[in-house]
Amino acid sequence: MRGRPRLTQAARQVLAQDRRVLGRLISAVENRDPKVIPTLRALYPRTGRARVIGIAGPLGVGKSSLLNGLLAHLRAAGRTVGVVAVDPSSPFTGGSVLGDRIRLEREPGDPGVFIRSMASRGHLGGIAAATLEVTRLLDAFGMDFVLVETVGSGQVDVEVREVASTAVVVLVPHLGDEVQTLKAGLFEIADVFCVNKSDLPGADLAAKDLRELISLARSTGGWTPRILTASARDGVGIAELWAAIEAHERFLDEAGTRAATERRRLSAEIVGLVTERVGHDLAESLRRDPRLSNLLDRVLSREVDPHSAVEQILRAGPRRPIRVP
Amino acid sequence: MRGRPRLTQAARQVLAQDRRVLGRLISAVENRDPKVIPTLRALYPRTGRARVIGIAGPLGVGKSSLLNGLLAHLRAAGRTVGVVAVDPSSPFTGGSVLGDRIRLEREPGDPGVFIRSMASRGHLGGIAAATLEVTRLLDAFGMDFVLVETVGSGQVDVEVREVASTAVVVLVPHLGDEVQTLKAGLFEIADVFCVNKSDLPGADLAAKDLRELISLARSTGGWTPRILTASARDGVGIAELWAAIEAHERFLDEAGTRAATERRRLSAEIVGLVTERVGHDLAESLRRDPRLSNLLDRVLSREVDPHSAVEQILRAGPRRPIRVP
Repeated sequence: MRGRPRLTQAARQVLAQDRRVLGRLISAVENRDPKVIPTLRALYPRTGRARVIGIAGPLGVGKSSLLNGLLAHLRAAGRTVGVVAVDPSSPFTGGSVLGDRIRLEREPGDPGVFIRSMASRGHLGGIAAATLEVTRLLDAFGMDFVLVETVGSGQVDVEVREVASTAVVVLVPHLGDEVQTLKAGLFEIADVFCVNKSDLPGADLAAKDLRELISLARSTGGWTPRILTASARDGVGIAELWAAIEAHERFLDEAGTRAATERRRLSAEIVGLVTERVGHDLAESLRRDPRLSNLLDRVLSREVDPHSAVEQILRAGPRRPIRVP
Repeated sequence: MRGRPRLTQAARQVLAQDRRVLGRLISAVENRDPKVIPTLRALYPRTGRARVIGIAGPLGVGKSSLLNGLLAHLRAAGRTVGVVAVDPSSPFTGGSVLGDRIRLEREPGDPGVFIRSMASRGHLGGIAAATLEVTRLLDAFGMDFVLVETVGSGQVDVEVREVASTAVVVLVPHLGDEVQTLKAGLFEIADVFCVNKSDLPGADLAAKDLRELISLARSTGGWTPRILTASARDGVGIAELWAAIEAHERFLDEAGTRAATERRRLSAEIVGLVTERVGHDLAESLRRDPRLSNLLDRVLSREVDPHSAVEQILRAGPRRPIRVP
């Protein structure tokens, strides 16, 4: 048997459900502080129990109300829930677009809930990687479910697929423009569609439009996306939404596709982490290694083209940068 | 003297201003068809003359009207112009969100203009890489200026910085929410701000707000962003906008920062191309190389954590995948 990584002090505190330490670790993941890695390693064997559910969709469709409803529903059933809200934000300033946007109505001090907004710094790959690590922290902390909410930008939403085992896409009636959005990615990521604000006119029509769209698309892996209407503000449709989510989770187990899906997700995560490191080292070498710096100068003077430079670098092996003292 | 790559047939046709071949090559770049690379290589030494100007900003601020105005202005001055409009779109379907969105009023068959919409497939890094290649094709074709328009999503806009030497950010009056957007990245990329629709109330106030924001920010590299108002629909402010763009281009030359900026851009491009290849090969190896596939299985079973797997892969060197026949 191989030795497992030793538990760090922080890892022990997470397992003992220390919320303050959990919060600090999430901040460290958000800031990509490498000091957190030993704790992430130590906790990894204690993860894999929580189900991660993604809630994606454009701004203003009422994702927060839905989250509220789901939280109340799950807490009433005695399940513990972590919530991660991912905000698109500046890669330069790290500022959050919408600030601390989530105002969820919950019992203050309810130990069965942990809610956290996350700024989405830097590259999109980085969002998925950091969000994954945060869901694992919440998993190790003991949450039964982790709900990941993303804020409406198409590209970020697609990343939900790299984090969640079930993805819910929330929309509102009058789908005219939304249909375009669907084509732009949301359509492909959804296991469950929720047409919220069903008290508004057009909700049934929107659901019908969706059904037609879905009948045109080929169903992937044997699951046909469910389509529901809800009026989250009034608590209507929440139980049905959760039932649809559970149905998809059951499907993953029964169809035997859960492991394959998680394998793909882990593969993408590992590729992302490796390329991030390779890219970081290469950028450093292009600045500091005289040979590579000279190659870059020759590209700049158009003596060498970028593709040839790439070939040269790949032949030399990007992982052995010459370190200049 | 090192041998330059031989001109391909297609490269010769671009240099001879064959618009049909240019269009075909742009499509090939968009589709990431590797067959186009020898032509890109051959043309690279013939590039570097065109100035690439980015026009970024949220949807609905009138970027197309501004482009129209700039096109007319430049054509009246006898300058040739390429236009590239980058649409965010699905990484899955490749469908364009807004379709062929640009309806520019121009002389049909004007040989001094070439306009092209581009879908933005896959990873964001890929958008910048493909857009760069398209600007180079238009450069080699003989365009004096290439205008790159991006469609409003914060992350995509930031990529303009990796393509253009001058970035214009277009906004409209009533900046309330826009100020948030600015914090989210647009602010940092703008060399020139254009408050369009200056006939609407609040335009002067918006410009004043911007000026205050900018006075708070530290100026980077000695250039303080210019702020202009325009009413592009009525042709008001176009000449002034172009003058501000030219002032920034002059500044790059006079301050001696053009080469340093282009060097940073080329470095980012090369890093992007290398990591893309490394990532592609690694993903392939994780699927097909039994050793790596086994490592992935052990991560899946939580016997090995992802960070340790990454370390193992980096130690072995990701560039020498075992090819399974």
